[in-house]
Amino acid sequence: MQRRLVKIEYDGTDFFGWQLQPGVRTVQGEMEKAVARASGSTDRVVVHGAGRTDSGVHALSQMAHFDSDATHSPSTFLNAVNYWLSGHDVSVIGLWEVPAGFHARFDVVKKTYRYSIIISEMKRPLYERYCTRLREMPNIDVLNTCAQKIRGKHDFAAFTSAGSKVTSTTRHIFESKWVSEGDLLHYYVEGNGFTYNMVRSLVGTMLEAGSGKRNVEDFHNALESRNRPDAGPTAPARGLTLYEVKYPVQL
Amino acid sequence: MQRRLVKIEYDGTDFFGWQLQPGVRTVQGEMEKAVARASGSTDRVVVHGAGRTDSGVHALSQMAHFDSDATHSPSTFLNAVNYWLSGHDVSVIGLWEVPAGFHARFDVVKKTYRYSIIISEMKRPLYERYCTRLREMPNIDVLNTCAQKIRGKHDFAAFTSAGSKVTSTTRHIFESKWVSEGDLLHYYVEGNGFTYNMVRSLVGTMLEAGSGKRNVEDFHNALESRNRPDAGPTAPARGLTLYEVKYPVQL
Repeated sequence: MQRRLVKIEYDGTDFFGWQLQPGVRTVQGEMEKAVARASGSTDRVVVHGAGRTDSGVHALSQMAHFDSDATHSPSTFLNAVNYWLSGHDVSVIGLWEVPAGFHARFDVVKKTYRYSIIISEMKRPLYERYCTRLREMPNIDVLNTCAQKIRGKHDFAAFTSAGSKVTSTTRHIFESKWVSEGDLLHYYVEGNGFTYNMVRSLVGTMLEAGSGKRNVEDFHNALESRNRPDAGPTAPARGLTLYEVKYPVQL
Repeated sequence: MQRRLVKIEYDGTDFFGWQLQPGVRTVQGEMEKAVARASGSTDRVVVHGAGRTDSGVHALSQMAHFDSDATHSPSTFLNAVNYWLSGHDVSVIGLWEVPAGFHARFDVVKKTYRYSIIISEMKRPLYERYCTRLREMPNIDVLNTCAQKIRGKHDFAAFTSAGSKVTSTTRHIFESKWVSEGDLLHYYVEGNGFTYNMVRSLVGTMLEAGSGKRNVEDFHNALESRNRPDAGPTAPARGLTLYEVKYPVQL
């Protein structure tokens, strides 16, 4: 039995998220079918992701591990999994052999998400698959003042949606910044982990501050209140991309 | 009767190109239906494009004109056309009133196309909707040496596909360059016009030079031969985007 770690890129538009669910197309479901076929296994091969992504969320770099008896070399195994993966919206872009004790979720050191926004009054067909659209450019200085306030260790209960099973909502944020690029606006956030809907709630609330609907103190108070109703709306899924997952060993 | 000029953005993936054809979904067909509805007209309203784009080719900026009796202001008209446009893959992003003598195709001064390539051995779901994929990075100096050779006035018969009705294949190229950006490679070409499949044939032939399949002299000889078989293959449509259309008056 050899444990393998894979790096997966996907366009989340036509998936019901990462997690396996009966009757719908999910990334984990597609991966498990392809890995079993590539392994020559008729049993289910469980593929453990670094984290779940919701319906419509994309990944430039989702990580996942699985165990298999197959003796393929990494490059042969990678090509075999891609051969069996159906659709042009998911692809394995890296595969490594890892020790049996390695775990794609528990061993995560840092994760980075990117949230992208296109500023336009009109619908923008070439951008809206991977961006949310806003009619007016928010104040980027205000956005960055908010973004800075979440750096460090905080309890993100106010930015956690119901439905999460986790007991602690405290996370450590290493980087949190907005970058503008012409008509595009990107938010990058790196942390040791994220609670359910945390990035999208943070973005929704920061955007209220950036558009003048609330002030920076309001944003800060929402964070400190640890009370979900004090925060703003959850931004749409399609702007969100799981951007990077880091482990103690550089792959 | 007032003539209007519109700027249209579209994702060409699910269109059978620009030109109206019975029984299939085309950008011109969708635009004509939406403009007629927005004008309150039961007759066909002809929408004249700056140029045709093939099946699968995208546009950040296609331009087109039409005549209408409707008295809407430009912003009302724009919103009305977008309201009636079906699908999230096409949008009017600008609308201007122009003199009756203005023509979206005949008055073009310069057009720019962009051709985008992602370099990766593996399938890349987040890029391949708008890029062609190459397994290895071609030699960008060779690509740019070729690109430079087409600047100025040339007969592009060798880079013109059959099926074109135009008599002259001579065009003036103002700018022609390759730019790399991480794993992405973009070719930008600006000219007074382009013959049928010209940009895609140029890209296919330059890529043969950039990957060592032919040398720069070969590329130059193909241009001078004016003989289609001397040039290389036509690169896939999905990497191509109509990037800008310029008129004598800045809109």
